[in-house]
Amino acid sequence: MAHMYFQMPVLEKFVGDAFQNVGFTKEESAIITDVLLTADMYGIESHGMQRLSRYDNGLKSGLIKKDAEPEVVFETPVSAVIDGHDGMGQLISYKAMTMAIEKAKKSGIGIVTARNSNHYGIAGYYALMAVKEGLVGLSTTNSEAIMVPTFASKAMLGSNPLAVAVPADPYPFFFDASTSVVTRGKLEMYRKAEKELPDGWALNKYGKPSTDADDVLKNIASKAGGGIMPLGGNTEKLGSHKGYGYGMLVELLSSIASMGITSNHTHQNGKGGTCHGFIALDPAIFGDPEALKEHFSTFLQELRDAPKAEGAERIYTHGEKEALAVDRVKENGVPVDVKTVIEMKQMADRLGMDFAAYFGELDLDTSSFSSIYS
Amino acid sequence: MAHMYFQMPVLEKFVGDAFQNVGFTKEESAIITDVLLTADMYGIESHGMQRLSRYDNGLKSGLIKKDAEPEVVFETPVSAVIDGHDGMGQLISYKAMTMAIEKAKKSGIGIVTARNSNHYGIAGYYALMAVKEGLVGLSTTNSEAIMVPTFASKAMLGSNPLAVAVPADPYPFFFDASTSVVTRGKLEMYRKAEKELPDGWALNKYGKPSTDADDVLKNIASKAGGGIMPLGGNTEKLGSHKGYGYGMLVELLSSIASMGITSNHTHQNGKGGTCHGFIALDPAIFGDPEALKEHFSTFLQELRDAPKAEGAERIYTHGEKEALAVDRVKENGVPVDVKTVIEMKQMADRLGMDFAAYFGELDLDTSSFSSIYS
Repeated sequence: MAHMYFQMPVLEKFVGDAFQNVGFTKEESAIITDVLLTADMYGIESHGMQRLSRYDNGLKSGLIKKDAEPEVVFETPVSAVIDGHDGMGQLISYKAMTMAIEKAKKSGIGIVTARNSNHYGIAGYYALMAVKEGLVGLSTTNSEAIMVPTFASKAMLGSNPLAVAVPADPYPFFFDASTSVVTRGKLEMYRKAEKELPDGWALNKYGKPSTDADDVLKNIASKAGGGIMPLGGNTEKLGSHKGYGYGMLVELLSSIASMGITSNHTHQNGKGGTCHGFIALDPAIFGDPEALKEHFSTFLQELRDAPKAEGAERIYTHGEKEALAVDRVKENGVPVDVKTVIEMKQMADRLGMDFAAYFGELDLDTSSFSSIYS
Repeated sequence: MAHMYFQMPVLEKFVGDAFQNVGFTKEESAIITDVLLTADMYGIESHGMQRLSRYDNGLKSGLIKKDAEPEVVFETPVSAVIDGHDGMGQLISYKAMTMAIEKAKKSGIGIVTARNSNHYGIAGYYALMAVKEGLVGLSTTNSEAIMVPTFASKAMLGSNPLAVAVPADPYPFFFDASTSVVTRGKLEMYRKAEKELPDGWALNKYGKPSTDADDVLKNIASKAGGGIMPLGGNTEKLGSHKGYGYGMLVELLSSIASMGITSNHTHQNGKGGTCHGFIALDPAIFGDPEALKEHFSTFLQELRDAPKAEGAERIYTHGEKEALAVDRVKENGVPVDVKTVIEMKQMADRLGMDFAAYFGELDLDTSSFSSIYS
């Protein structure tokens, strides 16, 4: 896939303006833009600019209700439950994590869950909001069912990512991963490239291992059965029940603790219904935050300095790859797939925005691409 | 391995008396006994009676200090840090989870961490203590380093189990699993049986995949390198960095949040130094606990009722296998490996206990077994 490189401020301006043109306020647009572009900055392209058209379409179809106001339906000094009323996932989640952070500052810990939301971008964004305040952050979300429980033949859980961010030097610990062995986006990349899937990723509609990305993705979309394996595969020998278990923990904090819709019932009849969970925790509830940070940073350095496997160049700690990606973006700009650039142009045209005013005259061959507004 | 079956009250009496003879009070002995026998009742034989000799030896060698008093060194309304002063892991942990439960009842949530402890039995025991009070429970521990981080050749994290228990009908959700793909105990079983390890479990001292249980176990014990893979194996393709990430979360709640010893430094120079983390959470901080329980139980039933993979007989939810094991124990008694029975007899002899008074005259061929007191 060919990429074009753009400077971050240009993309920020374009995406911010686009969401304002859709009808969001300047503040709301800034939040949505920051979530999207943080993904690109971290090298998580699947959750960045590439999703722009999906959000635009979701807003057009009514799946995402632009004017929905997130409502706090239950609250204690350490917790809250928010009903998102089918609004934009990023805005519901930003509000939820902001509340969790406020509670953590007062009570030591804040846990806020959200129901009736939509796709919220990268889970890690909200965990990092806490780190920016010197706190530990945790973020989870359920999603459309794609994960097949051990011994089942039907997807019942989402990709159910769990993200945790913790203050550390020289950069925060940042762990953001689906509890399924891979995400649906990975399968889509293999389908695009017409490559066979690796063993240990996916199941056909009979619950048998499959390497056919197209078949698996079609079955997920039509809910015909099959899907993606939990982390640990589809046998107890390699720990399938553990990945399935972590998926359950995400479901608990997201859809159960919000009295929302479990993954197997989301995305039906024109409703998303995604649920999230957010935790902010003040390390000061365990002692001196600086001493804790130093203790943790020492361990992280020991891990990076550990003896390497034969043939391995480097041992990473979680968050290191993202820190390296940020350095690359600062040097080269943000890489955006040409296909995504064309989608951005289509969105600009729909919204009456002057695409060239942001990006200049780009040489885009649109002949082989269909409209994102089908 | 041949097993003998004993009724639970007989084992309770024997183990309780044994620990009293070692010098623990009646109350302390009852706690230790309950932790050990709950493992056997749940079919987790590796953490039950089989560990008796290990604890006895740990007490004799001074690794475990019998008279240590766990000390609360830091406390807030939602948290505490305990210094175990190298005491018995079960007693330190029982106190820690009891505190977490008290805090959860008052503040909605309680998080207690413990440092300078020792092996605490099954992680799940403490999570279940919370469930017995209508709360959600979570328990973690680090351990001697056995897990090799992605791209490393040396074990830097423990098996680092995470256990979560949640009220549900007809039985609690109960998830208790190491974040390594398997535990050291599994490798020991393969060595005893002189079987090759399955692919995807272990690494030799160069960080290359190995199926040689004896070599891997020897290298772990001598800290020569190698060890067990994280959940997800040793390649990012199958999610090795995720299992390693979950191991890090356990380390964070156990050794970092207690300012204790990280796994790579435990079990050196005659000191254990194990650290634990415990969370109790009142579901009432999210609304009506009964409604939440019903919502969750419905999802669990949907999972059990989901279409099964071709050839699979049953889809389990976490805690179901343990519930089935309890039924078996009630019907048949507790299965105890003959080798373990002989170790119990040796311990009885050492402590001047009349073994036959508990178990009658058993036909034990001890000729091929060496003493547990070497």
